[in-house]
Amino acid sequence: MPYVNIKITNEGATKEQKAELIKGVTELLQRVLNKNPQTTVVVIDEVETDNWGIGGESVTNRRLQGK
Amino acid sequence: MPYVNIKITNEGATKEQKAELIKGVTELLQRVLNKNPQTTVVVIDEVETDNWGIGGESVTNRRLQGK
Amino acid sequence: MPYVNIKITNEGATKEQKAELIKGVTELLQRVLNKNPQTTVVVIDEVETDNWGIGGESVTNRRLQGK
Amino acid sequence: MPYVNIKITNEGATKEQKAELIKGVTELLQRVLNKNPQTTVVVIDEVETDNWGIGGESVTNRRLQGK
Amino acid sequence: MPYVNIKITNEGATKEQKAELIKGVTELLQRVLNKNPQTTVVVIDEVETDNWGIGGESVTNRRLQGK
Amino acid sequence: MPYVNIKITNEGATKEQKAELIKGVTELLQRVLNKNPQTTVVVIDEVETDNWGIGGESVTNRRLQGK
Repeated sequence: MPYVNIKITNEGATKEQKAELIKGVTELLQRVLNKNPQTTVVVIDEVETDNWGIGGESVTNRRLQGK
Repeated sequence: MPYVNIKITNEGATKEQKAELIKGVTELLQRVLNKNPQTTVVVIDEVETDNWGIGGESVTNRRLQGK
Repeated sequence: MPYVNIKITNEGATKEQKAELIKGVTELLQRVLNKNPQTTVVVIDEVETDNWGIGGESVTNRRLQGK
Repeated sequence: MPYVNIKITNEGATKEQKAELIKGVTELLQRVLNKNPQTTVVVIDEVETDNWGIGGESVTNRRLQGK
Repeated sequence: MPYVNIKITNEGATKEQKAELIKGVTELLQRVLNKNPQTTVVVIDEVETDNWGIGGESVTNRRLQGK
Repeated sequence: MPYVNIKITNEGATKEQKAELIKGVTELLQRVLNKNPQTTVVVIDEVETDNWGIGGESVTNRRLQGK
C-alpha cells in the first residue's frame, strides 16, 4: 500500500530505466518492510531543468556553468 | 482552505470530466467538513503510463499484457 | 489506480468524517472516470494551523483576528 | 536541506521569473532558518488551467467568466 | 539531485528500517540513472491508518475486518 | 492561487519563523508573478530527522557524525 513519488530532472531517462526504478523501489519496500508489491504505487515526475533549483539557481543555469 | 491533489494516468480524461472531479471533491469537503468552497484548491496531475508503476511494473507494460 | 492527497488544517476532523472523505472521493473517481476503487489510494494530511498559511498569514493568526 | 515545491498555473512564467522564484525562496530559508542554500531544492510545477480548480471550478472556466 | 517521497502507514517501522529505505533508494538512483547520492533527498511520511484509504475504506477499518 | 509546500527537518522552527516563511513566500509570488496573496496557500511540513535522508543516510545519523 505504500506510495512513492520520485522526482528527477527531465534529462533523458528511458522507458527501461524508469521501469527499473519502479521495480527496484517496489522490491525495496517488500524486502525492508514486507509491503505487498501488488498495491505499491510509484509515480515518477520528470521536471524541466528550468523548473528545478538547487543552490539558489536553476539546473539550466548550473549546466551552462558546467556545474 | 483545503488543498487536494488528484493523480491519474494520462489516458484521455476530458476537460468536462476534470471539471466534474473539481466540482465533486470541493462539494464533498463542504458537505463533510463544512469547508469553504471559495478557498478549496484542487490540482489534477495526469501522469504518463511509463511513469506510473503498480505491482512493480509500469502501467504501460501492464496494458501490453492486458492487465 | 488513482492517488489522492487531501490536506486540511488539524481542527478536529473525526475518524468518521475522514472515512467519509475516503469513501466519497473514491466513489467520485469511479463515477466520473470509471477508476477501480480497489486500487484507489487516498491519503489525508492534517496540518497544524501554525503551519498553514493563506493571505500571507498563518491560520493561527487569522483565527485570533476572527477571520 | 529544505525541499520546496511551488505550484502555479501554466500561464507564461518566463525562465527568468522562475529563476527569481528559486533564488528568492532559497534566500528566504537561509535568512529565516539559517538553512544551507547549497542543499536547498526547489521544484516548480506549472499546471494547466483545466487541471487547477478553485471555488469548485477550473481556472479555465473562471477565466472565461472574467473571474 | 533527485527527490523521493515515500509514504507508508504508521505501523511501527523502526529507525533502522527507515535508514535502510533511505540507503536503498539512494543507491537505486545512483545505479540506474547515475544520480549523485550526495544530493539525493529522501523524505518518509508515516501516515495514521485512519488517514489512509484504499478500496474506499480507511486502513483502520480494513484491519478490523482482517483485510 | 499558487500553492507552496515547504519541507524542513523538525529541529525547532518557532511559530514566528514559520509565520515569516509564510509571509515571505507569499510576497515573493506577488512580486515576481503578480499572484494574488489572498489566495496563495502555503503548507509547511516539519519532518523528523529519522525520516529525512540525504547522501544515503538519515539526518539523525549525520548529526551523530557531526555532519
